[in-house]
Amino acid sequence: MKQNRLQKQMAFLVELENLKKIYRQNVVIDGSRHENSAEHSWHVAMMAIVLSEHADEKNLDILKILKMLLIHDIVEIDAGDTFLYDEAANMDKEVREEAAAARIFGLLPEDQRDEFISLWREFDARQSPEAAFAASLDGMQPVVNHCESNGAGIKDHQLSESLIVEKKMYIQNASRALWDYTLDTIRRSVAKGLYR
Amino acid sequence: MKQNRLQKQMAFLVELENLKKIYRQNVVIDGSRHENSAEHSWHVAMMAIVLSEHADEKNLDILKILKMLLIHDIVEIDAGDTFLYDEAANMDKEVREEAAAARIFGLLPEDQRDEFISLWREFDARQSPEAAFAASLDGMQPVVNHCESNGAGIKDHQLSESLIVEKKMYIQNASRALWDYTLDTIRRSVAKGLYR
Repeated sequence: MKQNRLQKQMAFLVELENLKKIYRQNVVIDGSRHENSAEHSWHVAMMAIVLSEHADEKNLDILKILKMLLIHDIVEIDAGDTFLYDEAANMDKEVREEAAAARIFGLLPEDQRDEFISLWREFDARQSPEAAFAASLDGMQPVVNHCESNGAGIKDHQLSESLIVEKKMYIQNASRALWDYTLDTIRRSVAKGLYR
Repeated sequence: MKQNRLQKQMAFLVELENLKKIYRQNVVIDGSRHENSAEHSWHVAMMAIVLSEHADEKNLDILKILKMLLIHDIVEIDAGDTFLYDEAANMDKEVREEAAAARIFGLLPEDQRDEFISLWREFDARQSPEAAFAASLDGMQPVVNHCESNGAGIKDHQLSESLIVEKKMYIQNASRALWDYTLDTIRRSVAKGLYR
């Protein structure tokens, strides 16, 4: 029984290898290749460890935030990475991702499947203080990446400053300090000519 | 003052982009490219979340384990990835990594620098129950990867079964169940002809 449980867990962990092959619009900092969703998940988890003091809500459950950020993109193994500014692709994103969650988290023993699906839905809803803060880090990371990589992955999209501010505005619900930093970064990118 | 603190934290987080460019001996599961240390760190953190029930020691601090695993390879940004079976490179590994830790964690505010260096040293020493378990996951991940990727990154090294068992034996100090699984995986790889 215990053996069977470990085998299910290992089947899930081997499946996770596939997130290393899901590429995002962002590039790595020298512009040499696109960033994948596994290394992105590591990066936002590191942001949570380093930046949690800037959450406006105090006494957040950091372990829960880390779990959310580590699993938040796993559904992309089946559903692919959906570019935030691609309105057509965002239309059926929810349906694609729910099916992916059922298959991939379904590899786990039932109790872990239920926990992970619940954490993933909570993250996506951005309502709880932990989810709001985790989502703010996930929203902030590409903005910083665009600026630091001089827009290698983003310049061609000719995004407007106002669209980015609108899409990222939810960051201010979790952290005034990180929202100020994000706005400042967006302005630096505009000055560099990365956004319209 | 607070602003200065956030700027230091962001300088560190931007520096972390460079871990995405540190490539390991392992390959991703389809053998198409080498695995980098950022996505590897994500993968072992996921192992900690999923497999913690298999630690022989109970009531481990999972948050501490996650922090250790997320930061354990950051020194490689300066020191490079040192292949476990490269004896020459392992001679001066400690000196290279200590210098790297001082520079990279030194980008952070002092309290966080001290916390991270302390966690990294604790992980490396494998003495505390959290470090022993975290290290066992880090030791197990490449063994599973070799088997599942059919040895794409490892076959040419012609490693012997006995050398791998010797190098990985510390896993049994943290988890009997994961050590049994690791031994079984090594045997499957031998049967596939991936090790001597």
